[in-house]
Amino acid sequence: MSDPGNKNGIHINADQAGQDRIPPRIVVVGGGFAGLEVAKALGKVDIGVTILDRHNHHLFQPLLYQVATAALSAPDIAEPIRKILSRYRSVQVIFGDVVAIQTSSRQLLLADGSAVPFDLLVLATGSRPSYFGRDDWATVAPGLKSIEDARTIRSRLLLAFEHAERTSDPAEQRRLMTIAIIGGGPTGVELAGSIAELSRYTLARDFRNIQPEKTRILLIEASDRPLPGFAPELSEYALRRLRRLGVEVMTGRRVDAIEPHQVSIAGDLIPVGLTLWAAGVSASPLAAQLGVELERGGRVKVAPDHQVVGCPGIFALGDVALFIDESGNPLPGLAQVAKQQGIHLGRALANQIQNGEELPSFVYKSRGNTAIVGRHAAVFETGRLKLKGWFAWVAWAMIHVYLLVGFQHRVQVSIQWLWRYLTYERGARLIAEERDAPLR
Amino acid sequence: MSDPGNKNGIHINADQAGQDRIPPRIVVVGGGFAGLEVAKALGKVDIGVTILDRHNHHLFQPLLYQVATAALSAPDIAEPIRKILSRYRSVQVIFGDVVAIQTSSRQLLLADGSAVPFDLLVLATGSRPSYFGRDDWATVAPGLKSIEDARTIRSRLLLAFEHAERTSDPAEQRRLMTIAIIGGGPTGVELAGSIAELSRYTLARDFRNIQPEKTRILLIEASDRPLPGFAPELSEYALRRLRRLGVEVMTGRRVDAIEPHQVSIAGDLIPVGLTLWAAGVSASPLAAQLGVELERGGRVKVAPDHQVVGCPGIFALGDVALFIDESGNPLPGLAQVAKQQGIHLGRALANQIQNGEELPSFVYKSRGNTAIVGRHAAVFETGRLKLKGWFAWVAWAMIHVYLLVGFQHRVQVSIQWLWRYLTYERGARLIAEERDAPLR
Repeated sequence: MSDPGNKNGIHINADQAGQDRIPPRIVVVGGGFAGLEVAKALGKVDIGVTILDRHNHHLFQPLLYQVATAALSAPDIAEPIRKILSRYRSVQVIFGDVVAIQTSSRQLLLADGSAVPFDLLVLATGSRPSYFGRDDWATVAPGLKSIEDARTIRSRLLLAFEHAERTSDPAEQRRLMTIAIIGGGPTGVELAGSIAELSRYTLARDFRNIQPEKTRILLIEASDRPLPGFAPELSEYALRRLRRLGVEVMTGRRVDAIEPHQVSIAGDLIPVGLTLWAAGVSASPLAAQLGVELERGGRVKVAPDHQVVGCPGIFALGDVALFIDESGNPLPGLAQVAKQQGIHLGRALANQIQNGEELPSFVYKSRGNTAIVGRHAAVFETGRLKLKGWFAWVAWAMIHVYLLVGFQHRVQVSIQWLWRYLTYERGARLIAEERDAPLR
Repeated sequence: MSDPGNKNGIHINADQAGQDRIPPRIVVVGGGFAGLEVAKALGKVDIGVTILDRHNHHLFQPLLYQVATAALSAPDIAEPIRKILSRYRSVQVIFGDVVAIQTSSRQLLLADGSAVPFDLLVLATGSRPSYFGRDDWATVAPGLKSIEDARTIRSRLLLAFEHAERTSDPAEQRRLMTIAIIGGGPTGVELAGSIAELSRYTLARDFRNIQPEKTRILLIEASDRPLPGFAPELSEYALRRLRRLGVEVMTGRRVDAIEPHQVSIAGDLIPVGLTLWAAGVSASPLAAQLGVELERGGRVKVAPDHQVVGCPGIFALGDVALFIDESGNPLPGLAQVAKQQGIHLGRALANQIQNGEELPSFVYKSRGNTAIVGRHAAVFETGRLKLKGWFAWVAWAMIHVYLLVGFQHRVQVSIQWLWRYLTYERGARLIAEERDAPLR
């Protein structure tokens, strides 16, 4: 599909490289799984590239829910982009916030007023929580995408117990100790399981007036089962494990209102102390700057070589891209998709610049889908292979530790997990001061 | 001294305990080194006590400068007060912000509008940075007392390098890479040494346009030598080590103005990218609520049994208290002073309540004074014994790891120190978003 666009892009760049021997200025926006791999692949063969991010760190998002639930510290899963790319001398890292992409004059405008010109652009800015048009829900029901989100959730979660301990009104106590999680995909399931374990085990002995183990945790999913992206038997397993942990899984019901002290689920008003959002994401708003028509979830459609359809020389990867595979299905918004796309495009651009090769099509190789339900309990699915329980859980832990960037992080996270496994303790129970007015 | 006040306090409490067998309601404000020990000592013998803090965590302040300089994560040195005291069933922990102390009606008012009554009150709320009346300097030159302070300093420090990397104006680059530290006591020396090592080793290879190792670090001390509280030979050693790290130590000079982009030192204007405050602290403002005359640094004078002079049944410990020892000198504001005072008072109150014993006088036993200058370099002084260099540094590290609350923290901090020792890397280089307008 869209081969003309593809060839067009190649010719522009091949011409540039061939005619005047000036290498194209390659700019990558976003230091997530995709952008980092592009920069690394180019850096390895000493091709100049500039990578921008509005955070100074790469974030290992698959473990972000553990920061939100006090099991890990934020720095355990964040590594400075600058440090990761330090050894690649041809890579320039800019800590900056892109506010506009000018496709005609081929430059980026940053929040500090400066401009960054490019010949080839790689957009890999990921996604953010999407509230289906109800943006007013965002402050009441935080999603989980950044370190700041995780710290906000951690503080509000621990604060709910602190406030419940202080009140003598049983109804108010009950409200404060009710937590609603909207969305039963992997993030929602992981949050529900981890909060259940936090309240049942870690906090159980620490309070005098409340019994944290009686916390009511609601997992609200619009479809008919949790983990709808997995095989039904794995959903069934997750449901059983969640229930054993005391999570109330409400399927087939949608949220219709979220307010600071209550949510409305299919018309039922439920008083809550905290609401978390895990029901959907949409592409980073920078995608809209490309001037092409946006697809579902605000994503931009890309050709098999990741070039944005209608924008030669501009590529999109990861959660901002809508990539349709050979069987006609869009690739899911997973870290492994982003990472593979980044490696593929980085090598493809290097081959094009150094050897004049055409950009090959990308083929995704799924390494399997996984979600963690709780201690000893995970689900894992790849093709026909379906795993659940203890073995899936150990495999999940080992793979995730291995994928963490940096040896030090691997050691620290391993120790904290081992410690938590043995004692149920969590080391990062820190309530930070929220600068804006806290919810009460 | 002030024996009448002492005896007075004892009689009130002994009467209460003796006449109607209702134990006194003991309330401790502050979960620092002093307050925690009072609660523990009472909890061990099952005497009821309530402890309040406006943070949910006890903070190991001696290592706070390592959080500010990206060497440790905040949760590594913070432990929930609730968890520390979890096993003492007679101890009640309240996460609340005391806004007023009503000594006549004997109750505390909290920010949430609730009141906490007391018979005996222990004030242990520590100190905060003091700007000698120039409170407008506080936002420009943060001090180092809380997790929030440390995160603010860490973000601004790393941001200064990021901004320097982005500018092409050499003067602006020079300004951004100049860091002024006001105050040459232990905190100032520790910050200066740690920032020097961060810039010389950790960051050195990570930038392309700047050379972080050329960062200008100014340590400004009003007296004639750094570490004026130590023996002159140790100051001499610290000065030599700081200079070897490239720190410019400016002694005998005072700061007369601090603005966002410059400081004025004894009339000389110096453009700076960041200013840190380590020049003084004053007692927590709650001390003023007791209605007694405040001593130097806003502290309240206490009798040898820690009872506030003029306030029977109200005790002050640690940095809020002015305790004059037998030789007529005030005790210094050190963690070990606070800790010993807390243990002493907790046991004394327990003995009074259970056995009707009088409150004994407190005698401070100095375990020695220490400050860390950098890798392999510390000073340690106790009585006539003076240590410097590698041995003092190892002793410092071992003692501080041992004093950390919680086995998990000890393991984690040890590993991070070992890793940093071997690689010069720092694991917590995280720039957090400041909610209020960042300085630029």
